[in-house]
Amino acid sequence: MSLIKINKKITQNGFISPVLRQNIITGDWIVIAPGRARRPDDFIHPELPAVKSKKECPFCAGSKGYKENEIISSKKDLYVIENKFPAFYEKNTGTRSYYPEESFYRERSSIGHHEVVIIKDHNQLLTSFSKSLTFALFSTILERYNEIKKDDQVSSITPIYNHGPEAGASIEHPHAQIFASSVVANTVNREMDGAERYFGINGVCVYCDIIRHERAEKKRVVYQNDKFLAYAPFASRFPFEVWITPKTHKSQFENSNQAEIEEFSDATVEVLGRLEKIIPNIPLNLYIRTLPTTLEDCGYYHWYLEIAPRLTLFGGFELGSGVIINIIPPEKTAEYLRK
Amino acid sequence: MSLIKINKKITQNGFISPVLRQNIITGDWIVIAPGRARRPDDFIHPELPAVKSKKECPFCAGSKGYKENEIISSKKDLYVIENKFPAFYEKNTGTRSYYPEESFYRERSSIGHHEVVIIKDHNQLLTSFSKSLTFALFSTILERYNEIKKDDQVSSITPIYNHGPEAGASIEHPHAQIFASSVVANTVNREMDGAERYFGINGVCVYCDIIRHERAEKKRVVYQNDKFLAYAPFASRFPFEVWITPKTHKSQFENSNQAEIEEFSDATVEVLGRLEKIIPNIPLNLYIRTLPTTLEDCGYYHWYLEIAPRLTLFGGFELGSGVIINIIPPEKTAEYLRK
Repeated sequence: MSLIKINKKITQNGFISPVLRQNIITGDWIVIAPGRARRPDDFIHPELPAVKSKKECPFCAGSKGYKENEIISSKKDLYVIENKFPAFYEKNTGTRSYYPEESFYRERSSIGHHEVVIIKDHNQLLTSFSKSLTFALFSTILERYNEIKKDDQVSSITPIYNHGPEAGASIEHPHAQIFASSVVANTVNREMDGAERYFGINGVCVYCDIIRHERAEKKRVVYQNDKFLAYAPFASRFPFEVWITPKTHKSQFENSNQAEIEEFSDATVEVLGRLEKIIPNIPLNLYIRTLPTTLEDCGYYHWYLEIAPRLTLFGGFELGSGVIINIIPPEKTAEYLRK
Repeated sequence: MSLIKINKKITQNGFISPVLRQNIITGDWIVIAPGRARRPDDFIHPELPAVKSKKECPFCAGSKGYKENEIISSKKDLYVIENKFPAFYEKNTGTRSYYPEESFYRERSSIGHHEVVIIKDHNQLLTSFSKSLTFALFSTILERYNEIKKDDQVSSITPIYNHGPEAGASIEHPHAQIFASSVVANTVNREMDGAERYFGINGVCVYCDIIRHERAEKKRVVYQNDKFLAYAPFASRFPFEVWITPKTHKSQFENSNQAEIEEFSDATVEVLGRLEKIIPNIPLNLYIRTLPTTLEDCGYYHWYLEIAPRLTLFGGFELGSGVIINIIPPEKTAEYLRK
């Protein structure tokens, strides 16, 4: 089904009042406005053409690009390389931060790491990965995470996966990326501020409270197994957004054991498969938000995977105000994905 | 020229080290990584097809959609309507905020206004508006702003303009939008926090300090006239991002007088024309960030227009970390746009 069709069903072609919802962690407001998908649309958004020859693929074994890659580690189904065009790279200048232009602005070298975890088989699609391939992917990310963490210049590591051109995937060949920077990710910084404030007032991790609330409330739960909960967050910013998070308090992804990664892989495969079934060729981003590597295990932060489908575009209002308008209520997301 | 070509020129096909830069207002970090445009790109981003018949255009006088619109005001070159699918709408429920689900989450009615300012001539393109049309547009926005502000349910008004489908324009016919909500825009909230902190330490408006610094430093200045400065901000998030702001301290857009709107229009027309010349058919968003309407004139906030070209996509890293990777250094933006 298309997003427009789903939205028409939800609104039954009538007007549903938009509501404002507050992100309990950051304090940000978002708008749930189911009626807006009914807007006229006189621009044609063309289908993307099929991809050309795979001989030129820089990630396929044997190609020219492949041969030039510096392979960090290789396993049965995947291998890891340094990103050739890194956003962060290892280079210790000795200076942590400097003030250019007579101390007015602040700048730093973009120290860190930027690795690519590549699935060997060009034809695998993230939304139909097997459980074992997903397990191999997350295990490798975990392994690299712990290796990169040893570099004491690194403060924050963000594993991500871009799926589909609308989600910013610039190379079709299936691959994840690990970004490791010397500064804490802005979003994690903001979440930690809110989570710390919540902890100060309530004496408990806000994510743990959300998990408890969602499990009792049930209406936004998508899937769960022994160790992980998948749910559509109350103040979702994206249509069909889902968060997958450990049920018990864990602030750091990197401390996951094998049994946890197995259950995590299971939940991810389940949710991605259901998303693909509802909206074929769904473009999406995955990313893990977890504690900065410079901190020890912490009582108020909780790691999670966010699945962000990219079915709509942010316009001037979203960029200007930071207030995101989401046309699919998370309760409806959960309803569709529970089936 | 295309973005890729410009980037190749900037890097001279060599590797330029990425740097981290901090937004002096919010504290957010961004990355300037000129080398990344050289990445292989095996997805084809197709040209968008030309738009079909204008008879169906809901904003063209005489069409079916046009007749159904409730016209709020009409002038020589433009007219204003209520958005038919509003994100915010006037409806006083009496409740400012409520806590659904046993007081856990926070929700509000999406009270406010959502108006559309429509240029009568379907064939005008934002990037080649005349100075008089731009003046008419901003004057009308100003007039509606002050009218909407009278509603004491409104806290924050965000005027925007989406240009091109990649920037989220869902209707081709040229139009601006005015969003007025009962909550303060998240971005303005965050900027005010940072600006207030800066004021507390330095006793001066951070934007005024930036303007002073940029005028002295010169290398990021794009254009200026008597009353307005156009510059590429130090921690730009978008390739060819430009801010246009009053040179002297003004926290509120709505207090602008006719002479100021004239100079503001002049600066906007100049910058947009130069952007279009450098990158034909450039898709972009405009938005005004200004003081919440519930506050009186304030010493630490400063209104401005942001021009955000949409030449690249945010991927998983940008969404996950909030750290934006920008492939065009703002000094280069200014160099191109000064010519």
